[in-house]
Amino acid sequence: MTQQIRIGITGYGNLGRGVEAALQQSPDMRLVGVFSRREPASVQLLDTSVPVYAIDEVTAYQDEIDVMILCGGSKADLPEQGPYMAGLFNTVDSYDTHAQIPEYYNSVDKPARESGHVYLLCAGWDPGLFSINRLVGEAILPVGETYTFWGKGLSQGHSDAVRRVPGVKAGVQYTIPSTDAIERVRSGALPELSTKEKHVRECYVVLEEGADADQVRQAIVTMPAYFADYDTTVHFIDENTLANEHSAMPHGGFVIRSGKSALDNDQVMEFSLKLNSNPEFTASVLVAYARAVHRLSRLSDIGAKTVFDIAPGLLSPKSPAQLRKELL
Amino acid sequence: MTQQIRIGITGYGNLGRGVEAALQQSPDMRLVGVFSRREPASVQLLDTSVPVYAIDEVTAYQDEIDVMILCGGSKADLPEQGPYMAGLFNTVDSYDTHAQIPEYYNSVDKPARESGHVYLLCAGWDPGLFSINRLVGEAILPVGETYTFWGKGLSQGHSDAVRRVPGVKAGVQYTIPSTDAIERVRSGALPELSTKEKHVRECYVVLEEGADADQVRQAIVTMPAYFADYDTTVHFIDENTLANEHSAMPHGGFVIRSGKSALDNDQVMEFSLKLNSNPEFTASVLVAYARAVHRLSRLSDIGAKTVFDIAPGLLSPKSPAQLRKELL
Repeated sequence: MTQQIRIGITGYGNLGRGVEAALQQSPDMRLVGVFSRREPASVQLLDTSVPVYAIDEVTAYQDEIDVMILCGGSKADLPEQGPYMAGLFNTVDSYDTHAQIPEYYNSVDKPARESGHVYLLCAGWDPGLFSINRLVGEAILPVGETYTFWGKGLSQGHSDAVRRVPGVKAGVQYTIPSTDAIERVRSGALPELSTKEKHVRECYVVLEEGADADQVRQAIVTMPAYFADYDTTVHFIDENTLANEHSAMPHGGFVIRSGKSALDNDQVMEFSLKLNSNPEFTASVLVAYARAVHRLSRLSDIGAKTVFDIAPGLLSPKSPAQLRKELL
Repeated sequence: MTQQIRIGITGYGNLGRGVEAALQQSPDMRLVGVFSRREPASVQLLDTSVPVYAIDEVTAYQDEIDVMILCGGSKADLPEQGPYMAGLFNTVDSYDTHAQIPEYYNSVDKPARESGHVYLLCAGWDPGLFSINRLVGEAILPVGETYTFWGKGLSQGHSDAVRRVPGVKAGVQYTIPSTDAIERVRSGALPELSTKEKHVRECYVVLEEGADADQVRQAIVTMPAYFADYDTTVHFIDENTLANEHSAMPHGGFVIRSGKSALDNDQVMEFSLKLNSNPEFTASVLVAYARAVHRLSRLSDIGAKTVFDIAPGLLSPKSPAQLRKELL
């Protein structure tokens, strides 16, 4: 085997742990260390032989890391860490605030160029694999419509909203694509659908002692912005059921391109994900793109990149000749 | 708009006509001419203002064509035309004899390099988009299995076999993915499935006058290699029904990657196509890849390429900044 790609992880929550796990399935890569804002001794890795460092020490490890994978959040962590790391390392992140991507891109492109590094932002599945499928769908079938459905998935923001309702002790919310809407799209009927027509919402709620179920249900289903416009179902469960059946982080969804050829034939392309662990899948995507970033850097490429700039072959550990023989 | 990409088509059957149609949906491209082995006057294009030339004249049009799209077959046409055109033009083809791809790659790579052209082989959906999904699936979920299902689709070879049975006047055969097998794969159960366990076969047959239906059915379902090992159904229909309901060329299929994360979570990725016209979809893919080939050539790239070498962004007429803003 050629030399292993040396990886660093910054931030060790669900996503960071997922990256550590995904690296264990990638023999061409090796985890050099984890950088955390927490006290290093308090961070428990899956592999306790891997060192944990304070994030302030990161500059000392520039020569030991080929690609840094940032596992912080898009709201507070990445806007600060991204531009900083871009000046120090080849970097991959999963920035996912769609509306601010152009600004974020510029904020990491400049330091990456100036320091001669490659920075791949927005790796994951949306943005990420879903984005690629939206692009390829409209490039190949330019006359048509693209539909993105999310779910079945645990929604953090909506779960928080449920838990803020008086009388709710604990609870989770799932976003579920509407079966009816998916079937209409798959049929090639090109329906016009708003996000709320494409999805239904399902809540699993544990009541506070003495709370009135009907009142809680009413407060949830009429909540503006979050639930009022959606077909929302509320199930009441006990704490054991919540712990046993609703502690996983499933997610997924569909990107469907429904097109019409110039000779009037319906053509439908569909990409879907069914994930039992959302953070572990995002982590798997980050690791594959870290491989691509390392290769681009070896070819003296520099600057900010997105998944749109990465040829598929760069994601695989196999050689181009092997890929052509085995997978084409 | 910047200058249009000037396209030539070699070969004008179902695929060539599909390419002409797809170009009509691509305002950044323009069809310069069609090259045929037939008498040019006998070739009827959709747009009669586009010139048809004898293929022997093709060398005279090197300065007028940015990308040549080859629309011949993999068996007889491309092994001869590919290496020849590689020395004259930037070229795209849909070569699809999987087992011979490495040899074919070499046969076009050398003349393309020597003449300074880009040659993209095996564009289409399998090989093509399905290949990309096989690659990305195993790169992101390295522990797991990949399943390719074909259909529902009209199979030319099997339709020919049906028509050779004594007593059969006319007929078609469809390959259909087994619903049961797909459900088992989607569940994450990682079943071991042979091609014949993944597909069923359905035949629509018009009998010769006086032919015995049971005898014909028996001859079909017991035919070695083609049908004996499959779950095969034979429907008898009249000639009008055949003409009205079975003259389209539908196809499609599924690529499913069923993986397991290092923390033991099931993760399933799925890509599928439902095509009312197989040749028109392959044509749409060829046109999008012709755009990418033109761009690579502008960047002074040369030599043979496959879909594995093409970054998704190169397929879209939109600028990288626009893609990041609108589709990421």
